[in-house]
Amino acid sequence: MNDPTPGHRPSRITCLGGGHGLYQTLLAARHCAPERITAVVTVADDGGSSGRIRRELGIIPPGDLRMALAALSHDDETGRMWAQTLQHRFGGNGALAGHAVGNLLLAGLTDVLGSEQRALDTVAQLTGSHGRVLPVCNEPLDIEAEVAGLDDDPRIMRPVRGQVAVATTPGAVRRVRLIPEHPPAGPEALEAIGEADLVTLGPGSWFSSVIPHLLVPSIVDAVNGSDAQKVVVLNLSSEPGETAGFTSERHVHMLTQHAPSLKIDRVLVDNHELPTARERRYLERAAQPLGAEIVFADLREDDGDGGRSNRHDPSKLAAALLAMYRGD
Amino acid sequence: MNDPTPGHRPSRITCLGGGHGLYQTLLAARHCAPERITAVVTVADDGGSSGRIRRELGIIPPGDLRMALAALSHDDETGRMWAQTLQHRFGGNGALAGHAVGNLLLAGLTDVLGSEQRALDTVAQLTGSHGRVLPVCNEPLDIEAEVAGLDDDPRIMRPVRGQVAVATTPGAVRRVRLIPEHPPAGPEALEAIGEADLVTLGPGSWFSSVIPHLLVPSIVDAVNGSDAQKVVVLNLSSEPGETAGFTSERHVHMLTQHAPSLKIDRVLVDNHELPTARERRYLERAAQPLGAEIVFADLREDDGDGGRSNRHDPSKLAAALLAMYRGD
Repeated sequence: MNDPTPGHRPSRITCLGGGHGLYQTLLAARHCAPERITAVVTVADDGGSSGRIRRELGIIPPGDLRMALAALSHDDETGRMWAQTLQHRFGGNGALAGHAVGNLLLAGLTDVLGSEQRALDTVAQLTGSHGRVLPVCNEPLDIEAEVAGLDDDPRIMRPVRGQVAVATTPGAVRRVRLIPEHPPAGPEALEAIGEADLVTLGPGSWFSSVIPHLLVPSIVDAVNGSDAQKVVVLNLSSEPGETAGFTSERHVHMLTQHAPSLKIDRVLVDNHELPTARERRYLERAAQPLGAEIVFADLREDDGDGGRSNRHDPSKLAAALLAMYRGD
Repeated sequence: MNDPTPGHRPSRITCLGGGHGLYQTLLAARHCAPERITAVVTVADDGGSSGRIRRELGIIPPGDLRMALAALSHDDETGRMWAQTLQHRFGGNGALAGHAVGNLLLAGLTDVLGSEQRALDTVAQLTGSHGRVLPVCNEPLDIEAEVAGLDDDPRIMRPVRGQVAVATTPGAVRRVRLIPEHPPAGPEALEAIGEADLVTLGPGSWFSSVIPHLLVPSIVDAVNGSDAQKVVVLNLSSEPGETAGFTSERHVHMLTQHAPSLKIDRVLVDNHELPTARERRYLERAAQPLGAEIVFADLREDDGDGGRSNRHDPSKLAAALLAMYRGD
């Protein structure tokens, strides 16, 4: 990990993840005003518009990539218009209903340019992007989970395959693997991790947007080998979905369980979930294999109504990342 | 009609039509190197990708507009790449198969911007467009034809509705009308006709891309009232489709039949179809109600194999248009 000068800002931030979690993190990265932002994005989605395009055209599911491009769009009129267009979904009840325009545009450009990466860079140009968006792998991946609790006997594990199936299983996910296993990472993704000053992982759907990165062996090696400050941003515990009810400790444990060699500098936890001293001890113990320090900070977005939303506030997250980076 | 100085070029060209015919005419207009090119495009298509989008999303069929944008794309790497992307059609056999990427992009931008015209202008910016593309009307239109020859008794006329049905009818189309009838033209289309130095109509599918313009009363008034030189570019007689077997004379007659008040300066006919003196007389007589002079010129594209294709050659068409404009 770099030992930055106080007041120093990371000049290269690389964010690993997918979906809404990555979207918020990329907004936070923009608040940090680095010279370069790179998103390294999961490619295991098989639902909705992305899943339909993936099955129909055999390309990397574009949805998570599209969202990252939208998050990085320039904040002028043109950038906002294109971000809105990328995210726009067709209505009605026909064959196009639910498709995000950006997914179709990425699919079309991929066909024409013969490369997902060139398609992404072309759309990034449209949006006046503040950063680059890279798929973690250059092929579509599937996830398969071992799920308990689907039978009367809770010890019986059943495989559940596909991101949507895993995310919506009524059982408890114990472990996930990628199909194909041990895929090669995109070389530019590895480079972006290696050259970064700050690498973030999460928040996001833990089993479909966060852990899949750690199942790509060269990604774990790149994170471990990078001089960047490496930060896991933990989900807000109230986030619904596949990890509903998971403690912070369990989130962290899942990382070490899936990537035993992974080394991380900080695990950033929202301080509205103030743990008891005992819970804190458990969390610290869970983070030990990562070599990570637990950092609590105010991260949660106000819902504008006196309450707190289920999302990370980009400016709060940025402040916490910068404070850690400066070593405050 | 303007009385241009010899050597003078039209500075504003407005091209009326649709489909492949308009595509070639717009390429010809670019060869004329005017200051401004405007395409006024038919919105009566109901087939293929356009028809599916029109039915599903209730917008103007985008296909003819997309082709015009592709024809006007800047001839640099970026312009060519976007033109190719707009024209690219998804393969496979799923819900997206056959959709042109540009149609989907126009549909998405129309949803987001709330205006077909803003969508067209946004795509024109992408392609570094050499001109502007306007729909002739701001609502989708249908065509309905009176068709003879569908029954044993050739005098029986049957209505055939929709562009695809008309274009593929085994009968003989006698007359077409628009549904709704007498739609209002887009104000910018009228302006582009009024301000032009040169207005072209055709070539193209006569009943679905050319005559529909003349069924919009204010378009005929705008053409008649414009100081532009007004040229009808006649189809090459070998063009297949709804007018297969039509003589040049019959093409011209169809214009006056559908728009009795229409005034045109020149009817441009490919001189590979060298008519007999008698045919020429018929053609001149058919053009009399338009007040038009018949001009023969070499217009047909070489097929690169010593033969002649079924398309107008843009540079030959440009040369003929410029010669007429100069009054050669």
